[in-house]
This record gives sequence, structure tokens and C-alpha cells, in this order.
Amino acid sequence: MVAPSRRAVNLRLSESLTAPGAQFGDVAQFHDWLARMGEHAWMEVRRAPLEALPNWERDPATGNLRHATGKFFSVERLDVELPGSAVPRWSQPIINQPEIGILGILVKEIDGVPHLLMQAKQEPGNPNGFQLSPTVQATRSNYTRVHQGRPVPYLEHFRDVSGPGTVVDIRQSEQGAWFYRKRNRNMVVEVDGDVEAAEGFCWLTLGQIGELLTVPDLVNMDARTVLSCVPFVGAALRDTLRPRDAFTAALLRSFDPDAPTAHTTGDVLSWITEVRTRTDLRVERGPLAEVPGWSHADGRISHESGRFFHVVGVDVEAGGREVGRWSQPMIEPVGTGVIAFLVKPVDGVLHVLTHARTEPGYADTTELGPTVQCDPDNYAHLPEGARPRHLPEVLGADPSRVRFDVVLSEEGGRFFHARNRYLVVETDLETDPADPDYRWLALHQYVELLRHSFYVNIQARSLLLCLTSLLPR
Amino acid sequence: MVAPSRRAVNLRLSESLTAPGAQFGDVAQFHDWLARMGEHAWMEVRRAPLEALPNWERDPATGNLRHATGKFFSVERLDVELPGSAVPRWSQPIINQPEIGILGILVKEIDGVPHLLMQAKQEPGNPNGFQLSPTVQATRSNYTRVHQGRPVPYLEHFRDVSGPGTVVDIRQSEQGAWFYRKRNRNMVVEVDGDVEAAEGFCWLTLGQIGELLTVPDLVNMDARTVLSCVPFVGAALRDTLRPRDAFTAALLRSFDPDAPTAHTTGDVLSWITEVRTRTDLRVERGPLAEVPGWSHADGRISHESGRFFHVVGVDVEAGGREVGRWSQPMIEPVGTGVIAFLVKPVDGVLHVLTHARTEPGYADTTELGPTVQCDPDNYAHLPEGARPRHLPEVLGADPSRVRFDVVLSEEGGRFFHARNRYLVVETDLETDPADPDYRWLALHQYVELLRHSFYVNIQARSLLLCLTSLLPR
Repeated sequence: MVAPSRRAVNLRLSESLTAPGAQFGDVAQFHDWLARMGEHAWMEVRRAPLEALPNWERDPATGNLRHATGKFFSVERLDVELPGSAVPRWSQPIINQPEIGILGILVKEIDGVPHLLMQAKQEPGNPNGFQLSPTVQATRSNYTRVHQGRPVPYLEHFRDVSGPGTVVDIRQSEQGAWFYRKRNRNMVVEVDGDVEAAEGFCWLTLGQIGELLTVPDLVNMDARTVLSCVPFVGAALRDTLRPRDAFTAALLRSFDPDAPTAHTTGDVLSWITEVRTRTDLRVERGPLAEVPGWSHADGRISHESGRFFHVVGVDVEAGGREVGRWSQPMIEPVGTGVIAFLVKPVDGVLHVLTHARTEPGYADTTELGPTVQCDPDNYAHLPEGARPRHLPEVLGADPSRVRFDVVLSEEGGRFFHARNRYLVVETDLETDPADPDYRWLALHQYVELLRHSFYVNIQARSLLLCLTSLLPR
Repeated sequence: MVAPSRRAVNLRLSESLTAPGAQFGDVAQFHDWLARMGEHAWMEVRRAPLEALPNWERDPATGNLRHATGKFFSVERLDVELPGSAVPRWSQPIINQPEIGILGILVKEIDGVPHLLMQAKQEPGNPNGFQLSPTVQATRSNYTRVHQGRPVPYLEHFRDVSGPGTVVDIRQSEQGAWFYRKRNRNMVVEVDGDVEAAEGFCWLTLGQIGELLTVPDLVNMDARTVLSCVPFVGAALRDTLRPRDAFTAALLRSFDPDAPTAHTTGDVLSWITEVRTRTDLRVERGPLAEVPGWSHADGRISHESGRFFHVVGVDVEAGGREVGRWSQPMIEPVGTGVIAFLVKPVDGVLHVLTHARTEPGYADTTELGPTVQCDPDNYAHLPEGARPRHLPEVLGADPSRVRFDVVLSEEGGRFFHARNRYLVVETDLETDPADPDYRWLALHQYVELLRHSFYVNIQARSLLLCLTSLLPR
């Protein structure tokens, strides 16, 4: 038990934004450490035709791609109807992975400062080998040992949790364009006592992770989603941080639960209810053998336009990982996406222009997404009115107003070289307060919504972490 | 716009629990009014074989029962896997109604007291003709006029809402054993100005509706779910109510957001995450033509054991309703269910023993349900260990500890004579605080959870309204 006089770990985490790190005095030391990882572990990823992946087979009746054990995931067809949208009806391949995995980060106080136990982890879809990952990143197949690999280190800390050490414990969605109702359990758990960093693991402060977010393709998607759910409390941040300019001051105020908001949280919830009621999304899973508009040729499945993504196969060989050698299908997006928040102060409180975004794979139709989330190339052939709103404000912004602009990778276990440019851009834009699809939200409203599942999509969660990382800088 | 000096309508609604009614001085006058309804409207419901329902057809490929327009709802087959449960695998018929309907109640201040506009409404499945219903109870087929009926009165007040008059606006689930992912939009909206009660409508205070809850089969399910979502605030209740005994005092304290709780809300949310992660529910929709264990004979679909429910057909003829004559399938449960909360004070704050309940039709696997929710007859053939927990404490309680005990009906538009005995029973029961399936919750925690979708099931919502109705009595 934690003594009652000790402050709650989510309050103490704020101090981790500015305090010096215990293991690495500066990030240069971290980069040295990460470089040494490559000396002890390696991964070779070769493209392979889908029809030649060992242990993967096509279901004779449906043509769905599945593992011989029936575990892990399958690739299926999804038929989508979304009346009234720019493309009111389409079919596509989609990954179906009904298991709920664990994405968990351990926290331990070192020299009075909370540190996070992070892992340098390779994934076959990473464009660059190692990325900074959560302590534990395990599908149920992993942790029930379906593929007979080694046990997952530190998993025991996330199996029986309750009490004051649990900072985050909430299922969140992932990419609804590529995953059918995928959700993972995002966890942050504080440990007492002598947990040590094993080979390949290290202790970082939140401030150090924030600094590393500015390095392209380094902090992985799983680490980003978990850390975005940390419930920062305005008062604790105010005690720790001294804003150095008007932007940071407005950002800091935005975490204060008492800060005024453009819309009450009740109105935001009512808006979400309205959008989810109005949006008549119908999806049906179907056989991958025949997906209108898509064809299986040259060992992969592609859209006839060449746009969107391909379903590809890879053979993987690795050392220093749970399993030495395997093959799998992956989704390989065609382009690099743009994921951006437009932000501005409202009454001195930073607000984020939030889009109610519908994706076919969401469990509940619509989630709150970034102001802009698209691959601009996918829209080039569509008429002006069907192009993503607010994209010109993002791409045409004066450089002085671009607060964050880094290319980051998506989940390298399922997506092959999936990269997006994440931006936070200041704006003076005035919007219609009754716009059916957009609202300005303060960050403390996001903190409240992130206590619950499926309100905030994974791209917005990444951007929220990017915003948090701007607090001490 | 509401003037800023006016108190929020959810605060003023507390006063509606005790203040006298403007239209009816006492409930006897209401009963007179209700009796007169029968003089101007009638409904004749005759059982009819499923295969002979006009405008209903069986899909040639699947045997699913559907309306000729493709609207309203269909009856399909659901295959369920729930490993580790008493019945780990079964198939059943289920109603699929993807449309989100509106259940809305208008509030207006009369003589300074908020009154609710309620409707005396007949439904074919009601065992007793008229029940007290929300102002608006409309499927999308209703309000988009698929069946070419008359326009839905008062619907316009629920179509464009935002601002301080919206008290409740949240989608909630319905019976997950009979409906596949059904959800309705529950709304309470305050109106200014001269809205009048049309024929068949009346103005009641919350206290009067609470009094009418003690009349069997009177306050219908839709009215109960909508009113259960009203966010009562402890402070406003304290200003209005004077508890007359220890039970009522503990009940009142339980609405105070600052009242101590057996588990923090963070721990409750983490528990819900844990249960929803652990519960490996798999459901697949399938063809009604062949449902293992069920057969279509004598014009209805029944389980071979005679238990659970039948799918039956009815021919309906009505006057004073949107449509004069129609036919439809309905679900007719075999027995009368028992739906009960065990309650006890913890540190002087009433807590409710809450069961994390999994039903195949839930959008998200598991919701918080009553302590006991079952038809006892369905379990008579199962071994002791598979019988519902806590049923003996409910049925064997000393009468002095039974605070509420009334038989109420479920939705008469889809269910035929579906009735449950709703009970609130005081207990001294001690439970294991780490029991994987039960937690003690205070009412203010329910108020917070009811701002969001799919946390609290429809049976628990009815019981929460029953508890609220005990405040002034």
C-alpha cells in the first residue's frame, strides 16, 4: 500500500516533465545507449508474396488470410456504407484482430522523480529498426504464449492491478481505416521497490520522452497512445512549470479543470451523441476473395487506383526478440499522411479544433480526431468540396506558427513503413460554433474524455502527447 | 437564451420531486384522466402465426424475418461464445434494429416548478393498454415517416438541441439478451414558452411520476430509462429534501459528489476495463432459418426446452395512434423476471451492489447491471453453482428491508407481455472487495457514469429511478 501522505502518482508525474533523468543525464546519452542496441539484436525483413507466407493460409470458403492456428489476426473484406459522405459506399481489405492486447508502461520513482520504463523494440514495419516502446506491448497471443516464445518481461505488473498505483487503465481504439474494431488496453502502473531495467529497457523521464518526440520515427505509436492517457492535472502542472511565453501559458491554463471552455463538456457530449446518432454507418464483413475495386496480383492486394494501401507479405528473421523467425501480412500505406491540430487561445486558454471523424472500423462509428487527418494524395482526384477541410491552413501556415512538425511511425507490428507528419499549428481561424463536424476543445476536456473508451482517436491521442511535450520546452 | 441568473434546469428538477403538481393536485386525478384515455382510443392485439404477418417476409437466403420495406427491424440468429461461463456456447433468435430512435421528455416550468410532458401510450405488447410514456418515443422509421403515419408530436424540440436547456442527451443500450446492439438516444429538454399538452399528453412532476412508479405496469420502460439519466446533484437535493429516516438520509448522501465511496471512480473504471478485457465474448449473426436448439412450429419460434422466450406474431388494430393497423413479430418471454439491487450504507452513504453483466447484444460486451437480473425459472434445471448469485438474499429478505417491490413492463413495441419484478432490498451482506464480478457503487458514481453511453444497463437504470423515487417518500 502507498502511504496516504504520498501524493498521487499522476500528480507526481508532472514533475517528471522537467526534472533531470537518473539513467541518462541528457538525450545524447540515450542515443548512445540506443545505438548499442543494434550491436546485440537485429531484424531482417524481406517482402514476400502473400500466397507464399509460411503458416498463413487463405480460408477456402472466404479467401480470408488467416494464421494456421486461428490466432493473431486475419485479413478480411469490409463493405462500408456511409450515406451523404464524399464516397458513400466502398469495399476494402481490413485487419480483424478481436483480441485485446496490453500496452503498459511501468513507472518508478528514482531519486524522487517518476521515471518510465521504456523498451527499445524492433518491429518488422518500422522503417528504421528500433523505436522507443512501452514496457509491455503484448497481444493476448503473446501473453498466453500461442507462438511458444519467451515470456513477456514485466507482464506480471499489468495482470492484477487495482489501487492507487494504477494511473491509466483504459481500452482505446486504433486506426479505424485499417483495423476492424481493434482496441488495446492502455496502462500506466506505478511500482514500488526494486524493479530493474532489463537488457533493452531503460528509465526515462516524461520530459526526456517529450524531447525524443521531436526525433522522426523514434517514439512508437504504442508509447504515444499510452502516455496520451496520463491524466495531467492543471494544479500539479502549475506548481512545476513556469510558462516562458503566451503560447505556453495558454497551453498550461488549458490543463486546468476550472479553465473556461468554448463549449461545456455537457455540450461536447451532446454533440458527440448527435453526430453518432446522425451518422448512419453500416459495415459488413465479407470474403477477401473478392473485394470490389481491389485485386490480388504480384503477391499483394492493391486498389485499382494504386491509392490508399496495399496488403503485403513479409518474412522476418530476428535475434533478441521473442520469436526468431516468422512471416505475416501487413498493411503498407501508399503515401505519408498529414495529421494536424489547429490550436488557438480562447479567453487565454488554448483550444484545439476537433473533428468528429467516422471510420469504418470504429466500435462506435465516430471518434474525436485531429483537425486534419488524411493522405493528401488520396484526395487529389476528388472535386474541391470533397478535399479535407482545413488542410490549406495547416500546410500554408507561417513557419513561426508551427509549434510541432515531426514525422512519426504507426504500429510496426501490423503496418509496413506507415508514417505520418504530425503538426500542431497556431491559427486565428474563426469557425461557426454550430458547425456540425467541428468543435474547439480545451485540453482538460480531453483529459476527462480520455478516462473513457473510444472518444478520442489514436491520431488525436498522439497529437495530445505532442502538445504536452511542448509544456516544458 | 436562458438568462444567466436562472438556475440550471437539472438543479431545478430536484424541486420537482416534492412540489405540488399543476395539472393534477393528486394522483387520483391522474388516474381519472388516464381512465378517460380509454374512451377515445383503443387497440386490439391478436396473436397471429409468424408466417402469416402481412408485410413481413422471410429472406429467401437466410430465413430472417424482415419488413417488406427493409425498415423497422429484423429477427435474425445470433451465435454466441462466452468461454468460461455456465453456458459457454449457444444460438438464439435476436432482434436487429440498427436505427437509433429518440426517447425524449420535454420539461417546462409551471408555477415555478419543472413539469414533465408525459404521454399515455398504448403498445401492442403492453399487458394493460395504456402506459405512461415519454413525450416522444420514435424510431427513425417513425420520424422519417416510413410508414406514412402522422407526424410525431413535439419531435421538433428534440431535433436541434444544444445549450442550457438540454438536461440529458445520451445514447443508451437496451436489453442485450433480446436486441442486437440496440441503442436509443435518451433526451430531456427544457422548453420555454407556451407548449401545451395535446390530447393524450399531461404535465407531471418528478415526484408524481415517482409515486406512479409504485403502480404495476404503469411507467413504461422508455420513460424509466430517460428519467434515470437526469443528473441529480447532491447539493440541490439537500436543499429540497428532508430525510425522514436513516435509509433516506444515506440515500440522499449517496447523491453528493463529495460523499465517500467504497471504491474510487478511477478504480471502478479500471474494473470495467478489466472485465471487458477479460470477457472473451464472440458473437456472429447468422440465418434464422436454422437456429440450433430452436424450432419454428405452431406459428412461432421457441426453444426446445420451452424456456427463455418465443418469437411470436401479432396483428394490431388501433385508433388514436399513428397507424391504424399493422402486424409485427414480437419477443414473448416465458416467465416473469427478478431485477434487484441489494443496497447498504457504507460510511453512512448508500451503496448499490453492482454486477458486471455480459449480454450477447451489448455493443461493448459488459455493462453494469443489477445485483440480480434473471428469470429464476430459466435456471431451475442448472446445477447450484450456475444459479444466479444473491437471488436467495433478495427473495428471502425480511419484508421490512424491502424498500421497493413492483412489477413493471418492458418495451411494449417489441416485447409481448414482458414483465419483471423490480426490487430494492437492504442488506448487511459483506462481499469480497476484490470479487471479479461485483462492486459497491454510490449513486453519485452512477450519475457520473450515466453521462456516457453503455456503462449502465437498462435494468439497472430502471432500478436507479426506483431508488430516486424513494427520496421524497
